[in-house]
Amino acid sequence: MNLRVVLVEPIYDGNVGSIARAMKNFGFHELVLVNPCHIEDFGLAMASHAQDILERSRSVSCLEEAIDGANLVVGTTGKRVGNGQKHLRLHLRVPCLSPHELAVKLRGREGIVALLLGREDIGLTSRELAGCDLLASIPTSRLYPIMNISHAAAILLYELSQVSEGEIHMASRESLLRLLDRSKSLLGEVRYPEHKVDFTVIMFKRILGRAELTEREARTLLGIIKSVRWCIKDQSTKFEE
Amino acid sequence: MNLRVVLVEPIYDGNVGSIARAMKNFGFHELVLVNPCHIEDFGLAMASHAQDILERSRSVSCLEEAIDGANLVVGTTGKRVGNGQKHLRLHLRVPCLSPHELAVKLRGREGIVALLLGREDIGLTSRELAGCDLLASIPTSRLYPIMNISHAAAILLYELSQVSEGEIHMASRESLLRLLDRSKSLLGEVRYPEHKVDFTVIMFKRILGRAELTEREARTLLGIIKSVRWCIKDQSTKFEE
Repeated sequence: MNLRVVLVEPIYDGNVGSIARAMKNFGFHELVLVNPCHIEDFGLAMASHAQDILERSRSVSCLEEAIDGANLVVGTTGKRVGNGQKHLRLHLRVPCLSPHELAVKLRGREGIVALLLGREDIGLTSRELAGCDLLASIPTSRLYPIMNISHAAAILLYELSQVSEGEIHMASRESLLRLLDRSKSLLGEVRYPEHKVDFTVIMFKRILGRAELTEREARTLLGIIKSVRWCIKDQSTKFEE
Repeated sequence: MNLRVVLVEPIYDGNVGSIARAMKNFGFHELVLVNPCHIEDFGLAMASHAQDILERSRSVSCLEEAIDGANLVVGTTGKRVGNGQKHLRLHLRVPCLSPHELAVKLRGREGIVALLLGREDIGLTSRELAGCDLLASIPTSRLYPIMNISHAAAILLYELSQVSEGEIHMASRESLLRLLDRSKSLLGEVRYPEHKVDFTVIMFKRILGRAELTEREARTLLGIIKSVRWCIKDQSTKFEE
């Protein structure tokens, strides 16, 4: 599996080092850090024999840069959506896959998967989660669901290390983003209620994430949307005439 | 699942605290420490909101005391048996279950399972492993197989938290030990080559571990061995006459 581990604004260097170690334990190598803490001696000690992973890691200043080139972006969250947040539950956090379900979902796919792990205190923000194609969460006890981030990473990497790559070429991130962008434009053009547009685009994103589009399928869908938009434009021009 | 986590001579209090946290994350509570290091502030900090697990943990001076009352003892190891250690491979380390296979094996069983995690440097000794009913190992990269012990614990607990307990009552440890003891006596009585006895008893142990005996089955086997031994004794007495 071509996995990129992305740590978003990690606070403790010990956790960064521990995660580097777990990555090497499971045969993963690409680590990207978004606005990380400084890696001191403790972080290096926790990395143990995986200091090469830290040395080869890239530090970037924004999440967009970290996920550049990835075919699929998987967000992780320990947060549970309570009652009364039905919108969030329906559009934002569903489906939230278990690590095992995620591994099953990625079986046979080819492409770069970016796995996002958030800050030790607040995790990934709702905005960051909304930007992900798939979401994963570890099923934990309700009494104490908050895991140490390096433990969560170890469990996810353990499951993902069992995924065998195949020949189903996942759609590129550019094609998926273009698809969402064109869908959003289309919603505007058909005068879809404006206050529903953002949630609906997130819903599209979730559906596309679950559907695991190939590049060929993404391009075909783009072609269809293009035809629809042309047709609408054409008719409105005629109407104006 | 009725799980008891047993840490054998842990060296670093941070790891003990981290493991307590992972236990609470996955809904497990019983922690037993064999000759542990002293738990200092760092250990408490790593336990975070699971300090109650540490407070309720028991410290004992020998492994036998730690596994007292358990129906099944599962040893964990990161060691790989190399070539030229065929005896060990055949008798001692096989079968080594993955965490998932272990979870599948324990599905539907009722009884206390003791999960043994060894020292941070040398793990469990060969002797300690030989005393276990089942062995588990996490599949890792050959390049860097040595995991942080709390990561290994988190992965095992994650898998075991998904086991639903059932009504198949596992044989008690006393019955299993009695069965091994009587088998060993029987081997002596039928003049089985003495140098093979110890390995053969370990092989019995592995077979019984895999077979997941119920208490009823264990007692039936004990009865059979008893009959066989009586018969042998009876015939040898006749022969002497």
